[in-house]
Amino acid sequence: MPIVQIDMVEGRSAEQKRALAKKVTEAIVETAQCPAEAVTIVIRETTKQNIAKAGVLMSDK
Amino acid sequence: MPIVQIDMVEGRSAEQKRALAKKVTEAIVETAQCPAEAVTIVIRETTKQNIAKAGVLMSDK
Amino acid sequence: MPIVQIDMVEGRSAEQKRALAKKVTEAIVETAQCPAEAVTIVIRETTKQNIAKAGVLMSDK
Amino acid sequence: MPIVQIDMVEGRSAEQKRALAKKVTEAIVETAQCPAEAVTIVIRETTKQNIAKAGVLMSDK
Amino acid sequence: MPIVQIDMVEGRSAEQKRALAKKVTEAIVETAQCPAEAVTIVIRETTKQNIAKAGVLMSDK
Amino acid sequence: MPIVQIDMVEGRSAEQKRALAKKVTEAIVETAQCPAEAVTIVIRETTKQNIAKAGVLMSDK
Repeated sequence: MPIVQIDMVEGRSAEQKRALAKKVTEAIVETAQCPAEAVTIVIRETTKQNIAKAGVLMSDK
Repeated sequence: MPIVQIDMVEGRSAEQKRALAKKVTEAIVETAQCPAEAVTIVIRETTKQNIAKAGVLMSDK
Repeated sequence: MPIVQIDMVEGRSAEQKRALAKKVTEAIVETAQCPAEAVTIVIRETTKQNIAKAGVLMSDK
Repeated sequence: MPIVQIDMVEGRSAEQKRALAKKVTEAIVETAQCPAEAVTIVIRETTKQNIAKAGVLMSDK
Repeated sequence: MPIVQIDMVEGRSAEQKRALAKKVTEAIVETAQCPAEAVTIVIRETTKQNIAKAGVLMSDK
Repeated sequence: MPIVQIDMVEGRSAEQKRALAKKVTEAIVETAQCPAEAVTIVIRETTKQNIAKAGVLMSDK
């Protein structure tokens, strides 16, 4: 704990994910005051056909 | 908000997902009384090998 | 399956949740073409202090 | 209900998932005292590039 | 990893949760072949007014 | 999108959650390169009786 689940559109590079994991973990450690070892992050990549905002698929925008 | 996550077996067409996003958003707007712009839907498609009911994988049924 | 998880701000009445469950299920049955019995909905109610948009808690807006 | 969501690294065989679904369902039926028919399991397989512990991607370890 | 999220109706005793955590972890260790230390379980307790099956709230059944 | 769900032990102050929302959003905007307005965060607070690591409830440690 904490467990962080991030749903986002697919297509980020390994470099971006690496930076995201590092920075998000630092943000949580700093504000929730827990050791970095306690933070788990799961990234879930999704296609634009599987996300909708205001009833419209992102792939249709 | 609201955030709607839907796990279901893969294989629906773009047309089905388009209709699903539209209808589910309408249902939430109407009953939870929020603007459509506030509703986000994430569809997660799963293989039958990754779902079980009563201890049995759907791919084994 | 499908499993529908809805995160939203607390405070809807039983009547609203009843209507939401009915309408969202109908929307999924109609568009994903599955029996109503297959649809499970979980509503997760959250305080405004536990949701943020654009980095700002809803309780601060 | 209960709904069990399991995020884990991809690569388990069908045989392992079959056993996992069976054993986890048995564990829940026995301890939460519900019928097996009420237990749904969703397995979400993830690449090592999409999981981080202590701010480091599993693919970098 | 693995991360196990279990949504279920509220009301289980501490003793039941203790047994559930132990047995579900054993089931995953045995079948997914990972160390027990790698298994995190989160139980989410829900009221019957926040769960629906076939479009009907559990609190209405 | 992105949607960030954070499960953690209850007890953080409003000030901590405010800082967490701000810093985590900044971390995602910077690394995933999306506008802050696109980032939604949901914090789920859990009791120690509802989390287990290695098969043992946190409330028993």
